[in-house]
Amino acid sequence: MSRGYNFSAGPAALPEAVLRRAQAELLEWDGVSASVMEVSHRGKDFMAMAQRAEADLRSLMTIPSNYHVLFLQGGATQHFAQIPMNIARRDERADYVVSGDWGEKAVREAGPMVKVHVAATSAANAHTAPPPRDTWDLDPHAAYVHYTPNETIRGVEFMDVPDVGDVPLVADFSSSILSHPVDVSKFGLIYAGAQKNIGAAGLVVVIVRDDLLARSPKDIPKIFSYAEHAANGSLLNTPNTFGWYLSGLVFEWIRDNGGVAEMARRNQAKADMLYGYIDGSGFYRNPVDPAARSRMNVPFTLPDAQLDAAFLRESHDAGLLALKGHKLVGGMRASIYNAMPIEGVRALVDFMRDFARRNG
Amino acid sequence: MSRGYNFSAGPAALPEAVLRRAQAELLEWDGVSASVMEVSHRGKDFMAMAQRAEADLRSLMTIPSNYHVLFLQGGATQHFAQIPMNIARRDERADYVVSGDWGEKAVREAGPMVKVHVAATSAANAHTAPPPRDTWDLDPHAAYVHYTPNETIRGVEFMDVPDVGDVPLVADFSSSILSHPVDVSKFGLIYAGAQKNIGAAGLVVVIVRDDLLARSPKDIPKIFSYAEHAANGSLLNTPNTFGWYLSGLVFEWIRDNGGVAEMARRNQAKADMLYGYIDGSGFYRNPVDPAARSRMNVPFTLPDAQLDAAFLRESHDAGLLALKGHKLVGGMRASIYNAMPIEGVRALVDFMRDFARRNG
Repeated sequence: MSRGYNFSAGPAALPEAVLRRAQAELLEWDGVSASVMEVSHRGKDFMAMAQRAEADLRSLMTIPSNYHVLFLQGGATQHFAQIPMNIARRDERADYVVSGDWGEKAVREAGPMVKVHVAATSAANAHTAPPPRDTWDLDPHAAYVHYTPNETIRGVEFMDVPDVGDVPLVADFSSSILSHPVDVSKFGLIYAGAQKNIGAAGLVVVIVRDDLLARSPKDIPKIFSYAEHAANGSLLNTPNTFGWYLSGLVFEWIRDNGGVAEMARRNQAKADMLYGYIDGSGFYRNPVDPAARSRMNVPFTLPDAQLDAAFLRESHDAGLLALKGHKLVGGMRASIYNAMPIEGVRALVDFMRDFARRNG
Repeated sequence: MSRGYNFSAGPAALPEAVLRRAQAELLEWDGVSASVMEVSHRGKDFMAMAQRAEADLRSLMTIPSNYHVLFLQGGATQHFAQIPMNIARRDERADYVVSGDWGEKAVREAGPMVKVHVAATSAANAHTAPPPRDTWDLDPHAAYVHYTPNETIRGVEFMDVPDVGDVPLVADFSSSILSHPVDVSKFGLIYAGAQKNIGAAGLVVVIVRDDLLARSPKDIPKIFSYAEHAANGSLLNTPNTFGWYLSGLVFEWIRDNGGVAEMARRNQAKADMLYGYIDGSGFYRNPVDPAARSRMNVPFTLPDAQLDAAFLRESHDAGLLALKGHKLVGGMRASIYNAMPIEGVRALVDFMRDFARRNG
């Protein structure tokens, strides 16, 4: 048995060097004679590690000093609800720009907590491109504007940060954080589940501007308050300590591999290789507007869905894992996050070419 | 370097056999050519593992079929708030029996969600014994009665399940779940953070009777609804997949070591050895009513707090880790959960005896 190239959309492949290090120190971590999972989150060893991880993330993303970084639980889905709970009143309007299924889910979960207004949606064209900026119905008095920079299921990405004026911009970066440089100062709040580009499932990173922290109401349980988490270094409860540690290892790995700019260069090369092959193949097809094709998630279909089962079986046998598309879309999906080396994409393209030749 | 005996109150020691197995398969799990952290939570491999873990827990605890078992995030602290959100209306009364600091925290977090009534508290006697049952001011129409069977900080434990009539009994079993047999049918809801007797931090197990599930309101975000989690196999969002896996390994370890009854036998022997030595030492002291002394957490003080630093330094050098008491109590605390072998307690007692001799 050996490790394959893992195209899972999330939980997703981790850098092998990170897993090897975690494996080596799983029983005895950093000179403490115990696993990192077995030590107090309030002890000096864990706290030092946690602060190092935050400092590394701040450095990688050039996070300004007027933002707090929180390491929380509940995944992006919980924060669909927790964000309005913290930065809006229930009777306030919040504008949602929907470019895919995760945006729709954000709308549903936020619904009980704020007056959700869908300012724009690309549902009518099956989310094959984000809604054009000039069609967005924004309220300059909205509590915030929410969007999803990269939609994992249909593989649609905003290539630029939209200008929404003075209203705080809130972005679910779960599937594209750390994949390319982002100007954090353009956002009020950035959040991301860890299980794609940061680490393992069960951790969510929230980067929040201090003026929004001040909006956290006093009459909610403390455990839901971003302001309380910020004031307590994300140690209001016992955090996902192993997840936090693992994210720190991933941040080090990104730094040692040239930082986010180098990740972006590699990701662009991988995406160009895969989309280039698909478009020229005359066999596979990606339906997304070329100007909005995700650099992280590449869905594609075969000319005949009858071939899907054979494609999945044979690709798996070739060590190319988890290529089955999301059930809402069908076909295939290759997720090519930071941890996917270009060799993996090359192996996929080689397989696809061979499969097309044999079945074309 | 080698592993020490780890007396941390939580995150706490894991069985070494569990860590070794997790280490061995960290890069290639169960024939899937990837880490368990890298596979979809909706894939057949993960789902099979998750269902096996639940089945093992059901078997270990003899959980009746009219209870759901949920594997969630947020720790016990989040569920301090989420429990009333699910099983009470805001204008209903819920009775809280407080026997320590975690019970007090449960009261605080529940406060915004339900009319909290402190039915009894042992605060006046510094929580050295639970409030006697005949002093509890219970309302037969309360939404539920909440208590903390084992208080981690001061080491106070209920030895029996209190009778509260027909009102659903809700218990925070974070620090004593699986440490001795419990009649689940006496409870409406049992919950426990994983980081003491189940596995690693970032996972919480909720065992809830189906009639209470039916109380989950429809107008809250789905992600907070126990009924929605139950209907979706705890996969409403991406769960803490590694934590779930690790808990499954711990359940197997308990089963292979004789089950919960055998854990109880070992835990009683460890507790008897440690309390027996403390009481006869004429040097160390535990202030808790002997009838309510925790079998999991053993706080003790030295005759002079000036000796604390030397005790901590020397015990650490002897491979006895994390004995520092909680800041609210001072002194020392030895947490002796399931994963602590009796050899560890014997080594601790030997060290304590030697230290007392040299400093008495």
